[in-house]
This record gives sequence, structure tokens and C-alpha cells, in this order.
Amino acid sequence: MEITSVNNPLIKEMSKLHQKKYRDEMGLFLIEGYHMYEEANKLDIFEHVFTNDPAITGSKVIYVSRVVLEKLTKTQNPQNVVCVCRKLAEKELSDRVLILEEIQDPGNLGTLLRSALAFGFETVVLDNSVDVYNDKVLRSTQGAIFLLNLISMNTIDFMNLYQEYEYYGTSLHGSLLTEISYPQKFALILGNEGSGVSPTVLKMTKKNITISTQKVDSLNVGVAGSIIMHHYASYFDL
Amino acid sequence: MEITSVNNPLIKEMSKLHQKKYRDEMGLFLIEGYHMYEEANKLDIFEHVFTNDPAITGSKVIYVSRVVLEKLTKTQNPQNVVCVCRKLAEKELSDRVLILEEIQDPGNLGTLLRSALAFGFETVVLDNSVDVYNDKVLRSTQGAIFLLNLISMNTIDFMNLYQEYEYYGTSLHGSLLTEISYPQKFALILGNEGSGVSPTVLKMTKKNITISTQKVDSLNVGVAGSIIMHHYASYFDL
Repeated sequence: MEITSVNNPLIKEMSKLHQKKYRDEMGLFLIEGYHMYEEANKLDIFEHVFTNDPAITGSKVIYVSRVVLEKLTKTQNPQNVVCVCRKLAEKELSDRVLILEEIQDPGNLGTLLRSALAFGFETVVLDNSVDVYNDKVLRSTQGAIFLLNLISMNTIDFMNLYQEYEYYGTSLHGSLLTEISYPQKFALILGNEGSGVSPTVLKMTKKNITISTQKVDSLNVGVAGSIIMHHYASYFDL
Repeated sequence: MEITSVNNPLIKEMSKLHQKKYRDEMGLFLIEGYHMYEEANKLDIFEHVFTNDPAITGSKVIYVSRVVLEKLTKTQNPQNVVCVCRKLAEKELSDRVLILEEIQDPGNLGTLLRSALAFGFETVVLDNSVDVYNDKVLRSTQGAIFLLNLISMNTIDFMNLYQEYEYYGTSLHGSLLTEISYPQKFALILGNEGSGVSPTVLKMTKKNITISTQKVDSLNVGVAGSIIMHHYASYFDL
């Protein structure tokens, strides 16, 4: 059986997942393309796999026409496979935590998630940041999202709840990245692209980190966070 | 005098600068907003400053209406100041050079230019990369572009011409970033988002650098380049 009509009730329902409201309501999100399909296929999170590629098989697979794929991807050159996945459950906290306070740019969030996984910050707390299941975020994570433990929580609530971590923020007037010592249970807090980590949070941290630069006021938040996480991983030779 | 019509010949001519072809032809480019205006104002590169803000004054200033600003910025919520600047002249080469081979994403290019300036890689060679005067690139450089020495040249031509540098590429199978030594005259080559530095170039380099990561195949090129440039700057305590 193949679904060929964009008016099919299931297709109409699943197309709503382009909006955050419905992703939250249904606990589902969309991914596109072979690379993401393969990454997600390693986990048990498929609700539906929509494709026009007969090489893709399985109990969740529903074959659809090209116009249906266009509807599901909202693009005129759709990928040949679009999956509806269940949101990932929270896992146990890792020793290293990345906290993102009001990150607004999908590319920055995606980059940070990919770097977080690369450098062993497997728990990521999202405080009022752009939705992680946004298609642009998913594209720039390159599948890293499936291996991370994502938690939506207010930064200060998390700090109060998990006092076993040492919290370090970033600031233009902090201690130099390369000159400070780091704890085993380490939480790095990054803030909004324009305004940085909020002053209230900066007052609650143990230390605040500055990256030494010349001639520019600040670095892109994805770059700054990645440099710090890489430095931390090198520091402990992880 | 105020220009109020979008059909004014100068406005029509300057609006063409949204296209690379005309930027190349005229040797001019557009910047938008107060921050960029202030950065560019430190140099002598203004051809025209279009604004509706009476606080902005000077011999290059031309007052225009809001619809004219909309035409010049191609947005419905234009910034209050749009400048036409002359492209920057090439300067003497710095000891550290960043070479970008076929970087396609404007956000990545902008981020790399900002990091290059921050970490003292003041000469940047652009080999078939996205146009540096593209509005998205300019936005993400945050003005760094005005202080860099930008050269458009083929990577291999540059390598043949300037043999006093030691060239390091990036590769998934290179030497670990934190375990190698670095020369004073150092050129870092980064490659395309999808395919990396081209195999021909990788064979001509002295060393190729790998950043140690877990669970992900590769990092975002803006992140990888920034981590290497930061490491280099820390290595020499610059």
C-alpha cells in the first residue's frame, strides 16, 4: 500500500510536527534524510518511517509518493525518507553537563550539541533555548542528538537541585580558560548570543571563564563553548 | 536633500550590490546597522552612507526615506543606516595565515573570520569559498572583516608562491592537535563542510591535524578551525 494523497489524515496529522506546539503535545518529532534515518535506526524510537525508497523496509515503514514527501518536509526537493520519532527519554546525568541559557540560533544550538557529544558533555540542559527538535537544529547536530541526554529545565532550578556539580559560566571578565583548574563534576553554562549568561546566574557560579582574544569583543557562542569543552576534555585527557 | 524614491538612479545602482556579480564589478559592498557603521567608520572606506537618522553626519551621508532603506536592505524592517563601502585592499602577509578551501556556509565563514581575527590569523586566503561580502557573512563576522587581510587565491597557487610558511591541513586521520609542535610561520588549511580539505592539498601539507573526539565523526568546520587557532595562540601564549 502506498499513500499518494496529501489529504490522508495521518499525513495531515504528522505534517503538524513542523510546529513546536504539536511536537510538545504529541511527544514526536520529524527527521529527514538517510543519514538521520540511519542514526535514529540504531535506537528504538521510530513511530513511522515514510519513504519512496523500496530498499527501506521494516514494520514502521509506510511507502508514500513524492508529493507526500514534499508535504512532510515542506520542501520542493524532499529527501527520500522522513521519519516520525518519539522524543528521547531522560537518562542518568553524566559527570560533565552543558547548560544552555536562551540560545536562540538553531545553527548555534546544533553546533553546540554536536560538540557536546564529541567532548563528553553528554547531559545538556536547555533553559528557554530554541527547540531542539527544530529542523535546522536537527540538521546541524548531524545525529548527535540521539546520543545525548536532553533536559528542559531552568538553569537556577538545575543548580539548586544538583549541588554536586561545580558550575562555571562564561564572562568577558572571568578567569582565563588556560589558567584555571577544573573539577571532575563540571557544569558549563553558556548564555544568549546577544546578552551572554544572565547576571543572576553568573553570581551563583563558582568561576567564570574568559577566552583570551585580541581585537574582537567576543566569539560566536558555538565556538566559545566548543573551545572550552575541548580544553576540558584535553585537560583530563579524555 | 533627502532621497525618497526607490527609482532614484543612485539607489537603483547601489541596490545591485546584493548580487556578487555587481560587487565584483564595482569593487563595492553593502553593510547594514549601527554596529557595522561604527566599525567601518574607523577606516576610510565609505563611498556612501544612507540613513534616516539625523544624528549621523559627514561628507558621505545621504539622507533617505524608510522605503529607500527597505530597498537597499531588501528587508521590511530595515536598519536605520546602510553604507556602501569600497572593498579592502590587500596588506602585507601576517605570520599566521588561515586558508579556506570551498567553505560554502555563510555562517561558518563569518564565524571563522571572527575567530581568525581573535586568534591572530590576520591574513585569510579565500579559495572558491562563499563571497565574503555576502550579507549573512558580514552579519556573523561582527565587523571583524574590516581588520583582516583578505586574499582571493587558489590554495595550491598560494602554497607555491609563499614557501616560507609551514602548511597544516585538517584530516580525520592526522596527528593529534595537542601532541604536535607548531612553527612560527604557520598556515592552517580548512576545507569544505562536506568533503574537507581536498586530497591534492592534503598531500602537499607538512602535517595534518586531527581533533580528538568521541562518538561523532567530525566537528563543524567553524568549531574545528576555531579550536585549532585557539590552541595555536595558547601554544605561543599570544
